[in-house]
Amino acid sequence: MVADAAPSFVFVPSLAEGSGAIVLEGDEAHYLTRVARVRPGDHVSATDGRGALATLEILETRPVLRARRGELERRKRTRSLEVWCGAPEGDRADWLIEKLGEVGAAVFQPVESERAVWKRARNRTERWNRLAVAALRQSRSTHLLEIREPRPLDELLADTPAAGSRWVGREGGGPPGVPAPAGSSIAAIGPSSGFSAAESKRLEELGFVPVSLAASRLRTETAALAFAAAWAAGESMSS
Amino acid sequence: MVADAAPSFVFVPSLAEGSGAIVLEGDEAHYLTRVARVRPGDHVSATDGRGALATLEILETRPVLRARRGELERRKRTRSLEVWCGAPEGDRADWLIEKLGEVGAAVFQPVESERAVWKRARNRTERWNRLAVAALRQSRSTHLLEIREPRPLDELLADTPAAGSRWVGREGGGPPGVPAPAGSSIAAIGPSSGFSAAESKRLEELGFVPVSLAASRLRTETAALAFAAAWAAGESMSS
Repeated sequence: MVADAAPSFVFVPSLAEGSGAIVLEGDEAHYLTRVARVRPGDHVSATDGRGALATLEILETRPVLRARRGELERRKRTRSLEVWCGAPEGDRADWLIEKLGEVGAAVFQPVESERAVWKRARNRTERWNRLAVAALRQSRSTHLLEIREPRPLDELLADTPAAGSRWVGREGGGPPGVPAPAGSSIAAIGPSSGFSAAESKRLEELGFVPVSLAASRLRTETAALAFAAAWAAGESMSS
Repeated sequence: MVADAAPSFVFVPSLAEGSGAIVLEGDEAHYLTRVARVRPGDHVSATDGRGALATLEILETRPVLRARRGELERRKRTRSLEVWCGAPEGDRADWLIEKLGEVGAAVFQPVESERAVWKRARNRTERWNRLAVAALRQSRSTHLLEIREPRPLDELLADTPAAGSRWVGREGGGPPGVPAPAGSSIAAIGPSSGFSAAESKRLEELGFVPVSLAASRLRTETAALAFAAAWAAGESMSS
């Protein structure tokens, strides 16, 4: 799955602004100078995480890392997946975010539900964003996983237009098949203690189709990733 | 995804041997007395991890945990997945094993390949087996993930009969679709540095179909789980 000879791939939020020389700082500069050990004249790939892609030619590495940007290419998504996720146990959201980033989900939306609140989400935002950037770099993706603030399920349902495909993970639901070959999808996954009966009913009334993601019972984070993986396998088909 | 009212589910390797009273020890006794806090008269579900399932009635919790076994039920698998996996980075195999156990893979086979050996596998067996048991308990599955010793790819290929479905994860491969609705499957996933060109060629010659598991590039452990999740989604359909 790895192309050894591929150039380094970095996240540069300001990539599409201005033109000519770009100064790289922080994590990405550290990664390029210390890990990838680039030299003046080397080329690396860069994205702004919103679809823009360009080649950068390294101009100098000291005192600052400066590069010249080549032509901008715009990648558009034809499909997007929003994962609404109840609170899993402990720190299990950390790896879920890394993996959702790798398989190419668009949005991670923590959901507060009757049986569980996200105790850890508020002080995790910075860490989660770092994990999302690392996943983008690793997967050479042009779109960064967007991490939203936790919101109550009712509020989310009230604010979300009834468009696209909607799914809710549930033991005894139907098979996911190949979910939504195009367009936008939402997958709602209950917390470790599950959605309440009232919440499940409400979700189904609003068009969330119950799907079963395995014959066995899955943890919250496993169910979320299992759905995203099935969705991503559909994407590899259409790309 | 969680049935709150479901009784505890434990792993008892000797479940199918003899009949009548069973003494539970170690992790499972600890779990039942300290976590689930069972009392005499309570019922719990137990499996031997090889398809046998029974209800246990707790007889006493002190000085030892004794239970009476109800009728044995035998669950048969109609499908099985063997995951041949090159070495991922660092400790990433730990969570892969937990997740493969949850989604119901049958075998985890670490693979030594040209570019990577399993430095950590030899002293990890005990830990991995514990993770597999925890996943079995969590997912209420009647089959324990079998964790094998690392073996060289060539040796494995020479020893494996050419039956069932075979897949190899590869960027630019075809879509997995819904893999193998029945029977045995093998998914071969390269190490973080990838299979060599010669290894890929050999796998394909031996009938391993190249599949791409997402539009983006995946880490070894993500690719392995993505395949298993797509496979498990097929299982939920046939169960």
